[in-house]
This record gives sequence, C-alpha cells and structure tokens, in this order.
Amino acid sequence: MSEEKLDATIEKETGRKETGRIEAFSDGVFAVAITLLVFDLKVPTPSALEAITVAGLAKALYQQWPSYLAFVTSFATILIMWVSHHSIFKMVYKSDSPFLFANGLLLMLVTVVPFPTSLVSEYLTTPAAAIACAVYAGLFVLINIAYNLLWWTASHKRTLLNPDVSPAQVKIHARSIYVGFPIYLLATLLAFLNPYLTISICTVMWIYWIFTFAERGSIPAA
Amino acid sequence: MSEEKLDATIEKETGRKETGRIEAFSDGVFAVAITLLVFDLKVPTPSALEAITVAGLAKALYQQWPSYLAFVTSFATILIMWVSHHSIFKMVYKSDSPFLFANGLLLMLVTVVPFPTSLVSEYLTTPAAAIACAVYAGLFVLINIAYNLLWWTASHKRTLLNPDVSPAQVKIHARSIYVGFPIYLLATLLAFLNPYLTISICTVMWIYWIFTFAERGSIPAA
Amino acid sequence: MSEEKLDATIEKETGRKETGRIEAFSDGVFAVAITLLVFDLKVPTPSALEAITVAGLAKALYQQWPSYLAFVTSFATILIMWVSHHSIFKMVYKSDSPFLFANGLLLMLVTVVPFPTSLVSEYLTTPAAAIACAVYAGLFVLINIAYNLLWWTASHKRTLLNPDVSPAQVKIHARSIYVGFPIYLLATLLAFLNPYLTISICTVMWIYWIFTFAERGSIPAA
Amino acid sequence: MSEEKLDATIEKETGRKETGRIEAFSDGVFAVAITLLVFDLKVPTPSALEAITVAGLAKALYQQWPSYLAFVTSFATILIMWVSHHSIFKMVYKSDSPFLFANGLLLMLVTVVPFPTSLVSEYLTTPAAAIACAVYAGLFVLINIAYNLLWWTASHKRTLLNPDVSPAQVKIHARSIYVGFPIYLLATLLAFLNPYLTISICTVMWIYWIFTFAERGSIPAA
Repeated sequence: MSEEKLDATIEKETGRKETGRIEAFSDGVFAVAITLLVFDLKVPTPSALEAITVAGLAKALYQQWPSYLAFVTSFATILIMWVSHHSIFKMVYKSDSPFLFANGLLLMLVTVVPFPTSLVSEYLTTPAAAIACAVYAGLFVLINIAYNLLWWTASHKRTLLNPDVSPAQVKIHARSIYVGFPIYLLATLLAFLNPYLTISICTVMWIYWIFTFAERGSIPAA
Repeated sequence: MSEEKLDATIEKETGRKETGRIEAFSDGVFAVAITLLVFDLKVPTPSALEAITVAGLAKALYQQWPSYLAFVTSFATILIMWVSHHSIFKMVYKSDSPFLFANGLLLMLVTVVPFPTSLVSEYLTTPAAAIACAVYAGLFVLINIAYNLLWWTASHKRTLLNPDVSPAQVKIHARSIYVGFPIYLLATLLAFLNPYLTISICTVMWIYWIFTFAERGSIPAA
Repeated sequence: MSEEKLDATIEKETGRKETGRIEAFSDGVFAVAITLLVFDLKVPTPSALEAITVAGLAKALYQQWPSYLAFVTSFATILIMWVSHHSIFKMVYKSDSPFLFANGLLLMLVTVVPFPTSLVSEYLTTPAAAIACAVYAGLFVLINIAYNLLWWTASHKRTLLNPDVSPAQVKIHARSIYVGFPIYLLATLLAFLNPYLTISICTVMWIYWIFTFAERGSIPAA
Repeated sequence: MSEEKLDATIEKETGRKETGRIEAFSDGVFAVAITLLVFDLKVPTPSALEAITVAGLAKALYQQWPSYLAFVTSFATILIMWVSHHSIFKMVYKSDSPFLFANGLLLMLVTVVPFPTSLVSEYLTTPAAAIACAVYAGLFVLINIAYNLLWWTASHKRTLLNPDVSPAQVKIHARSIYVGFPIYLLATLLAFLNPYLTISICTVMWIYWIFTFAERGSIPAA
C-alpha cells in the first residue's frame, strides 16, 4: 500500500484534518448554544399562579405556549445550521484567517439565538410583539449573511476546498445558502404587519428543510 | 496486511466512522443537558429563611428535598439515555436523513429534561403536584417514542446497521426500548391519582435498569 | 511491521480505546461543570449598592469576597479531580457496568459542586455559615467515596486495568485516593466549630496538591 | 514505509499526541465560556418598560447597548484567546505539571470573562463605570500574565516544544504575547480617567488582531 493511500485511508476513517480542532470547537459551541435554549422554558413562580392548584398550574403552563413554539423553532433551526456547518466543513480541507474569522462571526451569531428566542417567548402575545419578532428573524438574516461569507471565503478561489468538489457543487451549494436571505428578510419586515406571520415563516422554513433535505441531496443552510 | 484489514484496524482502534461527528455532537448535548440539572438546586435566599442561623438554613435546605430527589432521578435517567444512545450508535455505521432528524428530535427532548425537573422541585409538595409530575413522566413518554423512532429508522430495512448485527439482536433491542413506553405512560396517568406514585415509578425505573444492566447483556433505553 | 505493532502504534498515537467515549463524555461534563462556577460571581444590582458611584460599586464587589474564594477553591478542586480522573482512565483499557455506574455517580457529584459553592458565597459571613461549609466539605467527602469506588471497580480484580500497571502502582494509587477522605471529613465536622477552618482546609488541600503533584509522581485524587 | 514515518503520518493526520486530552478539555472550557456570554443579553422585563408597545420595547432594547458592545468585545477576545491557545499547543508535544497548572490558571481566568462583561453591561452608563471597566480590562491583564506563564513553562528549557520550533519562532511568539500586557494595563488605569477609553482600547485590540492576523503570520495572544 502506498503512503498516499494510507494517508487517505487514515483521513477517511478518522475524519481528522487541519480543520479538525476548528470543527470540534464549533461543534462545542453549537452543542452548548442549542442546550441553553432550555432556559427559555420558565417554571411559573407559585406567586404568579391564580391558585396553586392543578388547574392554576395547568393554565400558567398553557399560557407559556409562545415559549414552546419559540423553543422548538430555535432548536430545529440551530440543528439545521449545524448540519449545514458540517456540510461546509466536509468540502473544506484547510483553513486560512478569513475563513477562521468568518466562522467566528457565525458562531457568535449562533450563540445569540437564545436571546431573541426568550424575547419572542416574553412578548409574542403583547403589543410589543413586532419588535421581538423582527429581532428574531433579523438574527436569522445576519446568520445567513455569515454563512454566505463563510462559504465565500472557502470557495471563491477554491483554495480551501477539497479538489474533488466540482464547480457545479460549489454553485449549487452557494444557491442553497442564498435562498434563506430574502425569505428571512421578508419575515423580518412582515413582523411590523403581523408578528405571527414572522413566526409562521420561521417555523415553515425548518419544516420545509427537514422534509426536502433527503430529496434535494444538497444541504440546507440557515 | 491488506487495505481492508487496515481500514478495519483503524476503525476499531479509533472508533471513527461516518456517524462520528453526529455522535460527538450528541455527546456534547447530553453532557451539557445533564450538567445544567444543577440549576435545579437553588440556594435559599437569606430573606426566605425563618432566621439566618444554622437551624434556619438547615431547615430551608431540608425543605428543598423534592429538588434533590428530582435532580438525582433526572441525572440517572439522562445517564441511562446516554448509555442507550451509545449502544444504538455502536450498531449503526452510517446515517441518512430520517435517522439524523430522529436523533435531532431525541436531543431536543433530552435538553428539555431540566424544565420538568424544576417543575417537580417547585410543586411536588403543593396541591399542583399532579400537573408537574404528569409533565415530568410525560416527557419520558415522548423521549421513549423518540428512541423507538431512532431505532426504527436505523433498523427497519437494516440499511444503517453494521452487517454483524443479527436479526435476533435487532428484535431484543427493539423490545428493550418498547418496554419503557407503557411504564412511563402509566406513571403519567397515575400522577392524577397520587403524584408520589409517578416519582416513585421514575425512581424505581433507573434503579432497576442499573441493577439489571449487567445481567441482561442488552442495553436499557429510556 | 506486524499487525499487532500497528494496532499498538495507532492506539498510542490516537489514544482511542474502548473507554474513549466514556472519557470524552466525562470530559464534557467536567468542562461544563467547571465553567458554570462563574455563575457564583454575581453582578451587584444597582439597587443593592449604597450609592451608584465608584466607591459604592467597589465596596459591593469587595463584600463579595467569599464568592471569589469559593470560586477559586472549587475551580482548582474540580481541575484536580479532572487530572485525577484522567490518571485513572490512563490505567484502564476497558469498562464494565459497575465501573460505568461508579463513573456516573462521580460525574453526578461533580456537577453538584456549583451548588454548595454558591451556598458558601452567600452564607460564609453570616451566622448560618456552619451549614454552608459543612455541605461544601461534605460534598467533597462524597466525591472522595465515589473516587474510591471507581478505583475499586477498576482495580479489585484487575480485570479492567492495563496489563502493564504493576500491583505496587495500584496500591500507591489507592492510598493517594484514600488520603482525602479523613481530611475532608474533618473539614466537614470542623465547620460547626469554625466555618473558616473548613474553607481553609479545602484551600490548603488544592494548593498542597498542586505543589506536590510533580514530586510525588503519583496523581492526586479529590 | 518505516514505522517512524507511519507514526508521523498518523500523528499528522489525527492530530493526537500526549497533550490531546488537555487540549480537548481546554477547548470544551473555551466553548462553554464563550457561549455563556449570551446571558449578558437580558430580556427586558415587561414591568421595566415605559409601555408594553413597539416603541417601549425598542427603547428598552436600545438602552441596553452597553450589553451588545461588551458581548461582542468579550466574544471576539475569547475567540482570539482560543486561536492563541491553539497556536501554543501546536508547538508543544508533551506536558509536565507546571505547564498543566499554568493552563489551569488560564482556563480559570477565561471562565471568569462573563462576570466583568455583565458588570460593564450593567454599569457602563452609570457613575460607577470606572470600577466596572477597570475590572474588565484588569482581567485581561491577568489573562495576559497567564499566557506568558503558559508560554514560559512550555518554552524556557524547550523541554515541551516540538523539535522543529526554531529559537527565532520562540522569541517572536513570546514578543507577540508580551505586547498585550502594557496595553491592557494602560486600559485598566485609563478607566479612572474615562471608562469609554478602556472599552475603546479593548475593542480596538481585537479588531487590530483580526486584521493583522494574516499578515503577521505569527499568532495573537490576548
């Protein structure tokens, strides 16, 4: 067996490469951020209940429904972002500093997700809902821009890409990332018309992605 | 040494395979979720004590006993879930999108565990205990469904399983997962009869699993 | 090169073995638990200050000194526990279920550390200090018992140990773990005489360990 | 292929060495600490708003601008620290106890970052800003000292360094770490003149690092 083949075998089997530690660190950040979303689910304080009875607690838990909606949508969206992140790193075999800092920007925005999630949970059923929902969808616009930046730093001169990634794949991947931008921008603007539209679009987005994921073959990007 | 043997040797030693990054991400989520349970243990505020004395603080800490019970039961249950998750991934050597999203659903439900844990801690000794306990055991019903789904996506056409997993093993494993469903469902319903029954069943479950784990040879599933 | 030598080479280089995923999960739990200690450091609320001035904030920060002490002692102690955990796993090459659950018990107790840390921070300078300090040192007694249990499950029949670990090493290691037990027990009891004694002993312990770590060659165990 | 070459190939590909578990643990701590910064972003409570309207919530969110500034600066600074940490470990191939505990000190200080970040967020626009900003920049002074200590334990006798690291590289690296010390010390002192100067220096520091990172070739150190 030649040395090159051994190299390739080991890399294939171990999945290790120059970008390994960046990937491991990014995975850690994604895993912590997605788990911190649980703090969005608040235990109603006894003093906030109408009565400390089965009915009183059931009602208080029911009235928190915006929390549950925001939690599920944020969790599913971060999960898809992680899959997407993974798919970018599968095509990349080394890193440079623009790529490193585009990834840093992306991670920063991902860790912010629990903040607007709680904002939506708190304000969705109040007259201030428009701002909460605009911030929520607006963050997804920024995350989409960070993904485009990350992909651009990786692919624009093909310097960081695996040689076996075809130009057609680069194009398809770029297009699958672009597509989120106008949709989330629309969702942000529609918040001022009707905040429930914003949340509906964000919810439909992750459901659509999950169900089309297999067929498209290409990978979704938040 | 042939190339295939080297492949096998490296895979055996390194434990790396196509599902490696999913496993690492899942482990991260399990590790964070299990550690966040500590927030269920609250430091009594000085103003809530009868008197800021040894006796006053001792009494306040004693009265938090539902927290300690809920903490231990949730910790042990998530730990068993992790062992169980590990055992499923040991039999799987590649992933597809249904498997990926069944795993995502499972992780989402696991990260939720700290929420009903705190609910039980807060309300177990109040008249609202039935709801708190029903939500607690109800989450374990949902987690059990997610495990069944994960195992089904992995095994129903055997496409993702290691070739050395026998049909008998698949059957035994499926059965060991099913078994939690009726028990947790019963625990959920019994909450409305007596909430302490629910907590007792959840506690007995993890103790039973740990003590039968070695003998059964097969692996428990929450 | 023979196949066995390749196996050994790969294992040496990659550090992978049957216990790899348990070790990675444990590391994750240690890393999260040690980082959550920061929540012990509280930002004084503006309303709690004598005056919102440089002097007012400086005084409020100064009065939180028990937090800083408890934070540093808990951080250093968990760090030493992690080193100790690492040293046990270096001598172990496979796991069984008692070992797995002894490790689970240890992890559970490690994740609890932020709780008595905050208790000490809140109550060290109050008349209720004895209870807070007794719980703090008492947890370290329990953690010591869990370490003894872990080492016992690993070494009592030598079934899980690397063959190259000598009986003398097993004895030395066991002794280095035992030693913490009487000291932390004493620290727990002394809390009722003088709580500052408890904290002093816990502080001296980690300082002693760090400075003797290199000379002893053997590894400390909390 | 000789055994040595295989060793080298495997190590190169897998990135595994004696320091692997320390690196993985450190990465875990960095990843959790950087993600916990999100708790600095607080959801305004409805009762704190002038009015629960779009304008009321927008104003409350706008008035939290010190949080956003502190969050971004802390995130970017921890990210650069991580890159820096990574670059030190790339030159090191084994560890000893001083190195291990210098790394522990560094990690402890990194986990503290969310505390002064929240302090700045809370007090930047109050008369108590000087203390908050001095603590913030002061922590970066301490972290810089820890980095110098870590590099010194690694390089002073060259015992832990990869043999292929040249004395010139050691010198350049040491200088790139020293440079942060006088700047952060100045930032700390200037807090008492004008707190905004402190924050500006901390902000300029990470922007400068990111933009010079590529050209310098050498790696920044906080």
